[in-house]
Amino acid sequence: MNTHAKRIKDLQCLLKDHKLDAVVLGRKLETSFLTGYNQENVFMLVSRTGAWAFMPKMLLADFQDKVDFVNASAPDSLLEAAALKAKELKLKKVVFEPETETYLRGIFWKQKGFAEHKGLTASLRAVKEGQEVETLRKSCRIAGRAFGLIKPRIKTGRTELSVYRELEDIMQAMGASGNSFNLIVGFGPNSALPHHETSERKLRDNEAVLLDYGCVYKNYCSDITRTFFHGKPTAEFKKVYAIVAGSQKAGLAKVRAGVKTQAVDAACRDYISDAGYGQYFIHGTGHGVGLEIHEAPTLNPKSAEVLRPGMAVTVEPGIYLHGKFGVRIEDSVLVTRTGCEILTKTS
Amino acid sequence: MNTHAKRIKDLQCLLKDHKLDAVVLGRKLETSFLTGYNQENVFMLVSRTGAWAFMPKMLLADFQDKVDFVNASAPDSLLEAAALKAKELKLKKVVFEPETETYLRGIFWKQKGFAEHKGLTASLRAVKEGQEVETLRKSCRIAGRAFGLIKPRIKTGRTELSVYRELEDIMQAMGASGNSFNLIVGFGPNSALPHHETSERKLRDNEAVLLDYGCVYKNYCSDITRTFFHGKPTAEFKKVYAIVAGSQKAGLAKVRAGVKTQAVDAACRDYISDAGYGQYFIHGTGHGVGLEIHEAPTLNPKSAEVLRPGMAVTVEPGIYLHGKFGVRIEDSVLVTRTGCEILTKTS
Repeated sequence: MNTHAKRIKDLQCLLKDHKLDAVVLGRKLETSFLTGYNQENVFMLVSRTGAWAFMPKMLLADFQDKVDFVNASAPDSLLEAAALKAKELKLKKVVFEPETETYLRGIFWKQKGFAEHKGLTASLRAVKEGQEVETLRKSCRIAGRAFGLIKPRIKTGRTELSVYRELEDIMQAMGASGNSFNLIVGFGPNSALPHHETSERKLRDNEAVLLDYGCVYKNYCSDITRTFFHGKPTAEFKKVYAIVAGSQKAGLAKVRAGVKTQAVDAACRDYISDAGYGQYFIHGTGHGVGLEIHEAPTLNPKSAEVLRPGMAVTVEPGIYLHGKFGVRIEDSVLVTRTGCEILTKTS
Repeated sequence: MNTHAKRIKDLQCLLKDHKLDAVVLGRKLETSFLTGYNQENVFMLVSRTGAWAFMPKMLLADFQDKVDFVNASAPDSLLEAAALKAKELKLKKVVFEPETETYLRGIFWKQKGFAEHKGLTASLRAVKEGQEVETLRKSCRIAGRAFGLIKPRIKTGRTELSVYRELEDIMQAMGASGNSFNLIVGFGPNSALPHHETSERKLRDNEAVLLDYGCVYKNYCSDITRTFFHGKPTAEFKKVYAIVAGSQKAGLAKVRAGVKTQAVDAACRDYISDAGYGQYFIHGTGHGVGLEIHEAPTLNPKSAEVLRPGMAVTVEPGIYLHGKFGVRIEDSVLVTRTGCEILTKTS
C-alpha cells in the first residue's frame, strides 16, 4: 500500500477508536498529507471504509491521474457535495477539525450537523513514519550544514538581509525548495527580539549574531537557531550563553518517548530560573516540526501531551536582554524510545 | 500622517459608514496592513476613535518601538483582552470579518456577541494607494522583465523545475524576496493543467511551454502568465493561441473604473465561446492582486463588484486541451478612470 493510502487507513482506524463515522477536511495541508495531491480547494470526506474528494473541474483530470485510491469528483458546490455524500451514506457521527478550518468552512460544517473534534490528523502528522523521517532528516541536515558555511562569511559591515539571502541560497544549493519561515538574522540588540524582522542593519565589531532559520525540503520544514559573538565576547554574553547552552542540554536530556512535553519545558525553564534569568525566558521551549514549521506537540509550561517515538520537536530556550542582546539555541530532534536524535547538527 | 495610521483612519471611516462601533482583527495580513508590523499573533480592536493591539510579551517592546499610533499591550489572554477592551469602552456593534478568521477565533468572537461583517479591510486593500502602487508596479515589472530573460534559456532537455529555479533567481536578482505562489512551469501536455505542479518533466522539441509566475517585492505580489511554442507551432496551437490572445485583449479593453467585474469576465468568455472553445475555458477570468496573490475583487461570471480606480486585477483567460496543450495569457493591471495600466509588460 502506498504511503498516502496507508495514512487514510490510519485515519480510518482513528475514526473507529474515537467511535466516529467520518471526518470532513478542507485545508490543503491535511488533504495533501492524505493524498499526496498538493493543491488548494480539494475537500474530503473520509469514512471508516471509504474516502471521497471534491474539487474544481480544472483539477479533476490531474487528480485522477495521480490518486487512484480516493473517489474523486468535480461537483458544482464542493462543500455541499461532501455533506451530501455523508447524508447519502447515512453517516451519523461526522466531525470536522476546528483547528484546521477557516471560520466560514467550519460554520458550514456545523450547519450540516457535523461536530467539532480536535487533533485527528494532527496526531497522525505528529508521529513521522517511513519516508518522511528521512525527508525531515535531510531538511534538517541542510539547515545544520548551512551554519558551517555561512558563519565564516558573516563579517563587519554586512547587513542582516544580505546574510538572510546568502543563507537561503546556500540551502537551495543543497536542494531546499525554500525557507520554512521568514528567517531571522539579528545583529546586536536585534538578537534580543525573538521575532525580529530581518533588516538592513549592518553588523558592527563586537556584537551578538543570532540566526534562526530553516528550510523546506520536499515539503518538510527544519528549524534551528545558533547564536554567537562577532568579535571578543563580553563577560555578560559568555555568562548568558553558558546558561542557555546548559538549559538546552538539560531540555535535550529530558526528551524521550513517554515523557510529558511540559517536563521538557520545565527542565529548560528551571535551569534558567535557577541561574537568575527566569524573567528573560519569554516564550515556550519548543514545538513539533514537519509539514508545518509549528505543529503538534507543543512544549510549554501548560502542555500535557506525551512524547511518542517518531515525534519531531524543537528545543529552543533563550534569554533576551532588551536593548543589549539575546541568546537562543535551538535544535530540531527526533524522539526515540531511549532519548532523541539531534537532526540539526552543526560542525 | 503615515501610511498605516491613515489606513486605520480609513477603516474608522468605514465603521462610521456602516454604522458599526468597532471591528476585531486576528490575521497577520490585516494587522500588518494596518500597522506595518509584520508578525503573527497580534490581535486588534479598532473603534471609531481608537486602535488597540494585543500581543505576546516577546513582541511588545519591538512593536512599541515601531508603531506609535496604536495602543499596545501584552496581556495573558490576547483574545479575551480584546473582547474586554470592547466591553470596557461600552462598544455595542462590534464585528469581525468572517472571511479573514480561523474557525476557532471566529467562534470566540461570536461567543463574545460580536457579529459577522464581510469585506471591511478587503475593500480598503482592494484599492491601492500612494506608495503601495509604486511597490506593486515594481513587483510586476520584475515579473514582466524576467520573461524576456528566461525565454531564450528554455531549451530542449531542460526540466520544468530547473526553469522554475532560474526564474526565481532572476526575480530575486532584481530585488524580489520570493515567489508570490508556487510558480507553474508546464511543458507539453502539462500546460493543459491550470494548476500543474512543476515537475522533473523535460522539454522536448516542438511542444507548448506555459509559465505562470510572479514574485513578492516588499510584500506585494505580482502575477503573469505567458505561453509559447518551443519549435514550429502546430496549426492547432496557432489557432488556440490567437483565440486566447483575442479573448485577453477583449477583456483588457473592458477594464475601466465603473465597470462590473462580471462584464470583464463576459468579454473574455464570450470571445472564446464564439470561437467554439467555451467548454475549454474552465476557470474564472481574474482576481485582485496585492498583499495576497488572490484578493478582492473577483472576476468571474457571478461576481458583481464594481471596478474602482486603484484596484489591481489579473485578466487571464485560457483554453485547455487535456493531453495536448493549454494556452493562458495573463497580465496584472491597474484600473484607472479611463481604462487600465498593464503592469506586467514583457518585451
